[in-house]
Amino acid sequence: MIRVGVNGYGTIGKRVADAVRLQPDMQLTGVAKTRPNYEAATALQNGYALYSAIPERSHLFAEAGMELAGDVDDLVRASDVIVDATPSGVGAENADRYRAHDTPAILQGGESADCVDASFVAGVNYDEAAGADLLRVVSCNTTGLSRLLDPLDREYGIEKVRVTLVRRGGDPGQTDRGPINDILPDPVTVPSHHGPDVNTILPEVDIDTVGLTVPATLMHVHSVNVTLDTAPTRSALADLFGRQSRIFLVDETLDIDGTADLKEFAADSGRPRGDLWENCLWQESIAVEGTDLYLMQSIHQEADVVPENIDAIRALGGERTADESMALTNEYLGVGMGSTSADIRTRFSSAIQPADD
Amino acid sequence: MIRVGVNGYGTIGKRVADAVRLQPDMQLTGVAKTRPNYEAATALQNGYALYSAIPERSHLFAEAGMELAGDVDDLVRASDVIVDATPSGVGAENADRYRAHDTPAILQGGESADCVDASFVAGVNYDEAAGADLLRVVSCNTTGLSRLLDPLDREYGIEKVRVTLVRRGGDPGQTDRGPINDILPDPVTVPSHHGPDVNTILPEVDIDTVGLTVPATLMHVHSVNVTLDTAPTRSALADLFGRQSRIFLVDETLDIDGTADLKEFAADSGRPRGDLWENCLWQESIAVEGTDLYLMQSIHQEADVVPENIDAIRALGGERTADESMALTNEYLGVGMGSTSADIRTRFSSAIQPADD
Repeated sequence: MIRVGVNGYGTIGKRVADAVRLQPDMQLTGVAKTRPNYEAATALQNGYALYSAIPERSHLFAEAGMELAGDVDDLVRASDVIVDATPSGVGAENADRYRAHDTPAILQGGESADCVDASFVAGVNYDEAAGADLLRVVSCNTTGLSRLLDPLDREYGIEKVRVTLVRRGGDPGQTDRGPINDILPDPVTVPSHHGPDVNTILPEVDIDTVGLTVPATLMHVHSVNVTLDTAPTRSALADLFGRQSRIFLVDETLDIDGTADLKEFAADSGRPRGDLWENCLWQESIAVEGTDLYLMQSIHQEADVVPENIDAIRALGGERTADESMALTNEYLGVGMGSTSADIRTRFSSAIQPADD
Repeated sequence: MIRVGVNGYGTIGKRVADAVRLQPDMQLTGVAKTRPNYEAATALQNGYALYSAIPERSHLFAEAGMELAGDVDDLVRASDVIVDATPSGVGAENADRYRAHDTPAILQGGESADCVDASFVAGVNYDEAAGADLLRVVSCNTTGLSRLLDPLDREYGIEKVRVTLVRRGGDPGQTDRGPINDILPDPVTVPSHHGPDVNTILPEVDIDTVGLTVPATLMHVHSVNVTLDTAPTRSALADLFGRQSRIFLVDETLDIDGTADLKEFAADSGRPRGDLWENCLWQESIAVEGTDLYLMQSIHQEADVVPENIDAIRALGGERTADESMALTNEYLGVGMGSTSADIRTRFSSAIQPADD
């Protein structure tokens, strides 16, 4: 059993903690939180040991009637691996703490690639993580693009990638984020930083990216153009994408029009928080013009990095292969829209009554 | 066991079907749907018998590879009670079908009060439903106002109610609804129809309502003023509301700022679809000026009528009291934010690992 502690119990941290709990080879030692809000309350509801991420604020938890198991140093001591899901920039500041305990740590995509030993997407470069002290699971957008581009590069060869990222303004609970009635070039300088970040995973891919931000909170959408070395067919592409366990090829018969319907489908399927761990790629959007491929995919910014964090935990130890780890993660988390719906059903719905009419 | 069929498997129908499945004294005979979209797919994923709501469209399901158990008449024949969760106006059209089968049916709040034997909110007028052929579970807003006003009237006496309803424009998946950048007087005529609808449940209460619609999808918010016969205190009010199982008194220590945080809290608590079955009443908003009470409450339009539909099923038969039915519904659905989190946890999270550090 790998003992895993989660420092930072917000959007990503709470999802990673829940996912760790579901893995057969991992044990959640606890979660660290800066303040006793509703997320801390649900951590305790879930039976998680709660630690104060900032020792000086421990008294706030006591005042709110929440029992602490200790502070963040106690959590690090109790853990073989730390997943740091603190806000951007804080993870890098925490690195010294993890080094002092000689405990490997996984940071998130908000941190710079320069401050870690390796950047990580399970399906692409799992083996590079073995033995790292600091690993970085790249951002939701970089994860989504890497998952899409790697199989295309292996199958057809990539000459050039051009992506427009239509980004959500904030997560659903972030009431202090904008825009509320605008379409922002963001960043206005082109190309955006997203392309170079993809190159931390796929260094050979020639990619230019453009970013815009819109008044939406549910998911990002990527408009993707890939010029390939050899011309594909639509059906061969659908077959290729259909074989990727972390790409959900959205069939037109499902009548899923946008990001809200995607979230609704995930919630209806019994997924916790309506999470979409896969790239959601509209099959109808796949178009081929000679060697040019066009498509649109949607990325759930709160969720797609969760399976990658779980695989990153195993990758650090080097005891399982990428295929083994991804298969375990997919099975026990329930990744794979459609194929594993039976697993999801078994886990989340205990009392199905068949009709006997 | 009461055999329950659900006609209409959209926003309300799928939630009622899931809730029926969880009740110890009910059996879900199946669900009827007009088209084979993703909701039909998840009905089959859930193991529900699927019926064609429009017999002429049965072939569409076959073409989508979905197996039907029959059409809606077969569903009605197999059921002791039908919950009709079809769009507004369709329920009234369906009434003849249910009468022809001599099967009692529960319609939703979009239907006129004139076309049913009684309108229903479990905590207020449960006993009036016994033996009805057609019952109407009132709208989300009327349900929420009735739950709030009935205990106030019993405890203090109500002289006058004035409510401004700040309404969501559409449900999250309704991409064809507006507004997207406006605040609409809706309806612009004052008072709005909401007050008279409350009077179908609480005929003696003097209530005027005003409606506005805003660019939001998650929940409605009510700004409520109640002039009482006798002056309350804030603490007595908090105590009164805290005793109502279908009111969630939102404590300030939870740091829940708005409707998005409410939904996030429900999802974090493991609730299916992040549903809030209770009125969500911000405790900080409760203010008393003499005999005038002010407060704000939030209503999850997709969810608050779900427990009422379950109680309505039992109320038709007249074999259980209101208290018995509400207690059963609350326990097996998991109503009661906080108090039944342990139940929710047990049902939805099977593999909690306590930390052993």
